[in-house]
Amino acid sequence: MSPRVPITPIDAAEITTYDHETDVLIIGYGCAGAASALDAVEAGSDVILLERQSGGGGSSALSGGEVYLGGGTPIQEACGFDDTAEAMEKFLLAALGPGADEEKVGLYSRDSRAHYQWLVDHDVPFKPSLWDSPTWVPPTDDGLMWMGENSYPFNEIAEPAPRGHRVTSDGFGGKVLMAALSEAVDKTSAAVHTDTTALRLIVEDGRVVGVVARHFNDTVAYRARRGVIITTGGFADNKDMLAQHAPRLVGLGVNSDGGDDGRGIVMAQAVGAAVKNMAGAQVGISLVPGMMVRGMIVDSVGQRFINEDVYPGLVGVAALNKHNLKVWVILDEQAYEEVPEDERWGVQPHFVAETLAELELEIGMPEGALQTTVGEYNRFAAEGQDPYFHKSSRWLRPLQSPFAAIDVRRGMAPPEYGDGGTGGGGAEVFSTGGLWTTVDGHVLDLDGGPIPGLFAAGRATSGLHSQGYISGTSLGDGTFFGRRAGVAASAGQ
Amino acid sequence: MSPRVPITPIDAAEITTYDHETDVLIIGYGCAGAASALDAVEAGSDVILLERQSGGGGSSALSGGEVYLGGGTPIQEACGFDDTAEAMEKFLLAALGPGADEEKVGLYSRDSRAHYQWLVDHDVPFKPSLWDSPTWVPPTDDGLMWMGENSYPFNEIAEPAPRGHRVTSDGFGGKVLMAALSEAVDKTSAAVHTDTTALRLIVEDGRVVGVVARHFNDTVAYRARRGVIITTGGFADNKDMLAQHAPRLVGLGVNSDGGDDGRGIVMAQAVGAAVKNMAGAQVGISLVPGMMVRGMIVDSVGQRFINEDVYPGLVGVAALNKHNLKVWVILDEQAYEEVPEDERWGVQPHFVAETLAELELEIGMPEGALQTTVGEYNRFAAEGQDPYFHKSSRWLRPLQSPFAAIDVRRGMAPPEYGDGGTGGGGAEVFSTGGLWTTVDGHVLDLDGGPIPGLFAAGRATSGLHSQGYISGTSLGDGTFFGRRAGVAASAGQ
Repeated sequence: MSPRVPITPIDAAEITTYDHETDVLIIGYGCAGAASALDAVEAGSDVILLERQSGGGGSSALSGGEVYLGGGTPIQEACGFDDTAEAMEKFLLAALGPGADEEKVGLYSRDSRAHYQWLVDHDVPFKPSLWDSPTWVPPTDDGLMWMGENSYPFNEIAEPAPRGHRVTSDGFGGKVLMAALSEAVDKTSAAVHTDTTALRLIVEDGRVVGVVARHFNDTVAYRARRGVIITTGGFADNKDMLAQHAPRLVGLGVNSDGGDDGRGIVMAQAVGAAVKNMAGAQVGISLVPGMMVRGMIVDSVGQRFINEDVYPGLVGVAALNKHNLKVWVILDEQAYEEVPEDERWGVQPHFVAETLAELELEIGMPEGALQTTVGEYNRFAAEGQDPYFHKSSRWLRPLQSPFAAIDVRRGMAPPEYGDGGTGGGGAEVFSTGGLWTTVDGHVLDLDGGPIPGLFAAGRATSGLHSQGYISGTSLGDGTFFGRRAGVAASAGQ
Repeated sequence: MSPRVPITPIDAAEITTYDHETDVLIIGYGCAGAASALDAVEAGSDVILLERQSGGGGSSALSGGEVYLGGGTPIQEACGFDDTAEAMEKFLLAALGPGADEEKVGLYSRDSRAHYQWLVDHDVPFKPSLWDSPTWVPPTDDGLMWMGENSYPFNEIAEPAPRGHRVTSDGFGGKVLMAALSEAVDKTSAAVHTDTTALRLIVEDGRVVGVVARHFNDTVAYRARRGVIITTGGFADNKDMLAQHAPRLVGLGVNSDGGDDGRGIVMAQAVGAAVKNMAGAQVGISLVPGMMVRGMIVDSVGQRFINEDVYPGLVGVAALNKHNLKVWVILDEQAYEEVPEDERWGVQPHFVAETLAELELEIGMPEGALQTTVGEYNRFAAEGQDPYFHKSSRWLRPLQSPFAAIDVRRGMAPPEYGDGGTGGGGAEVFSTGGLWTTVDGHVLDLDGGPIPGLFAAGRATSGLHSQGYISGTSLGDGTFFGRRAGVAASAGQ
């Protein structure tokens, strides 16, 4: 805590002159800010977007560019999948729970096809082809991918369909998404004020009416006639806030643009906002899903703990919460060789051995640990079964000598997570908890009522999620609920 | 959220007459409130204690009556244990972490012997005898017990000494502790106003100066000249707050007096208070430690996940966070028979079988699951070793037919947890997160500075803990930091 500049709100009576006035003032120009701006303008508002950096994009532009969409989008249909909003809703409630936001998930699922169309109408490109194997990010430009919908237990909870919609890109899609949305914003009357950091909210008779910001050395006052929308991102870059709310994340690598300092969340709290699920996180761990799914992931005593074909983000959450990331990928030579070179991301095994007895000795596991686990695994895999964790028979095969082990904590940032460098402690994370908002982006106070004039969207809010995380839901709920916040703020209530 | 009565603070200008005035106003008469009152009076303050119920006690009076104390107390010395504040501090940081409050743990450990003496000076009885076996609550009135200090990994982190100090009692000690403290409060000038529920804080120029409360059908205004101390307990009884901050706890049994609704926490948030670690919890699960330690605890596919001789509260946290309480105690007839009748708490195995193959089939585990796990366990136990989880050799012995299994989720509330009835889902919990306070009980705002006039202690605050929990630390930090809050509030800053 203790930021250098006080975060407590300023009474409007203390503001003698406003440097700028607008209808809707948006703080933060990532995907949620851009979507808010577009739909606020559409709703008839004058809009100013504040951005701390010298240009828009934020953490959104650094992301893999996956948007979680379904219910029968044209991309799904082109790839031969029937999907329904009901199946999408059931999957999300299971994968993001326990305690995922039912109202948000329901609305998000029901309106998902329309949201797909909105993205396409704003020139966000998606290609109608499927990548059909577990991964963080496919090495291709295929536009559709599974997010574990076809893995246990989700395949028994809801009719499976792939819903990871990938923005077409040479590499990561986040920058393409933000380029498209920024270009759309540029065509509107919305003004973008870069190099401008929001510092404190301005309050008048219990209503948020503006923001005091810093532009280089100047203090600048903004008045918002209709509403202020906070789209400042999460708090993964703020070590103090992590220690306060999500201590397991302290010391891990961070997946952000470096500006996820949580200030937007705390600014809103300082005018009475409630927060939700502040311990939630996305946990990207350093493993190659193609290797893991063909072998297994085990804890420090060689025990499996999850079916390896779920979305790797859920493996990350489990590895952190259950085993503090002390986990290993165990595989054999055949499995390693089966992973194409361009999907290996340069990963080499840390240990190789002819026998499991040697491998467990090298790793420092109890004598017999891997022999027992792989023995049980192989016994059932030969029959195409995995009664322990229910991995799909597609990935089951008895592992054979020679064997190899990869230490997840030694770090190999999957390509989704930034520069391909080493994630701290083997993981790169971001926070998913934040301001408690309605489906229209109203920020709720501690009584559960809306704070007049204050809205939020994106990772500054607690979105669809509770404890689980599936990629695509951040760009997804950021743009979806950002749009709704833009409309609601324009109504000026 | 959405309590019927608004929780937003009232401006002092709106209060025309105060019904009562005092120096220090304390909300909630559990152990933290009593300790605050005693040391506030000692520091020269007039004190009024508000209590919603018709008498004091709160959840404290229903508790087992364990107080975590050490550093060489007379009880430890009489039982033949040398202990140091340094060892106590190291243990607590490890057992309550990651991210336990270093400043609070350090001070609590250094001043622990003095705090023991304060309790004894207030006629809280402790008996100098040791119960030397893992348990929630010993069936005897022994005054000292291990809290897992002698189990892995804590025995390698800090010199072990038992620090669970039990208030001497026929049964649970919480009521005896509260009787002693209440008797001490009765001897002071402090006034106790029962049947009085605090509703909203009164604020004047940014300083908390009082409370609006309800006494039956009357609204009553209290003015506090020096400070208000919130000691209202946690939020385990508030399902909405659990869903908001600690969704894993929703639907489980609650260990409280029924009044842990979190209102004190939210009242303080409404004047700008910061909270910390809101997902933290004590998780009392339905198992008999004497059975578990002689056998093993396994997940739904028969895998062990912890050394069974740690404090059972840490087993509960692991069982909830790692396996959503889908865990089983596996033991053999000899282990069952070894547990004395009065330590069995009426627990009967849910399944009994001659062979592990039959047992795993009856439970519904994968074929081979228990055979594998018990096989590995027995192989090493025969040598007095447990390389997987490092249970002490004292409890290691190859398990032999006939075998038995106990389903933890079917519920058997351990006697510490209320009426011996069924804990919901096999567990009874309470929250350990709450207001962020200094070691002097000042409630911190979102900038990290103290809120003038506002103090807190006990389970309304985030105390010593982060993610872990050891029994005795709630009565311990409630009384210890309650006293400090009483002194600090009396200084009127």
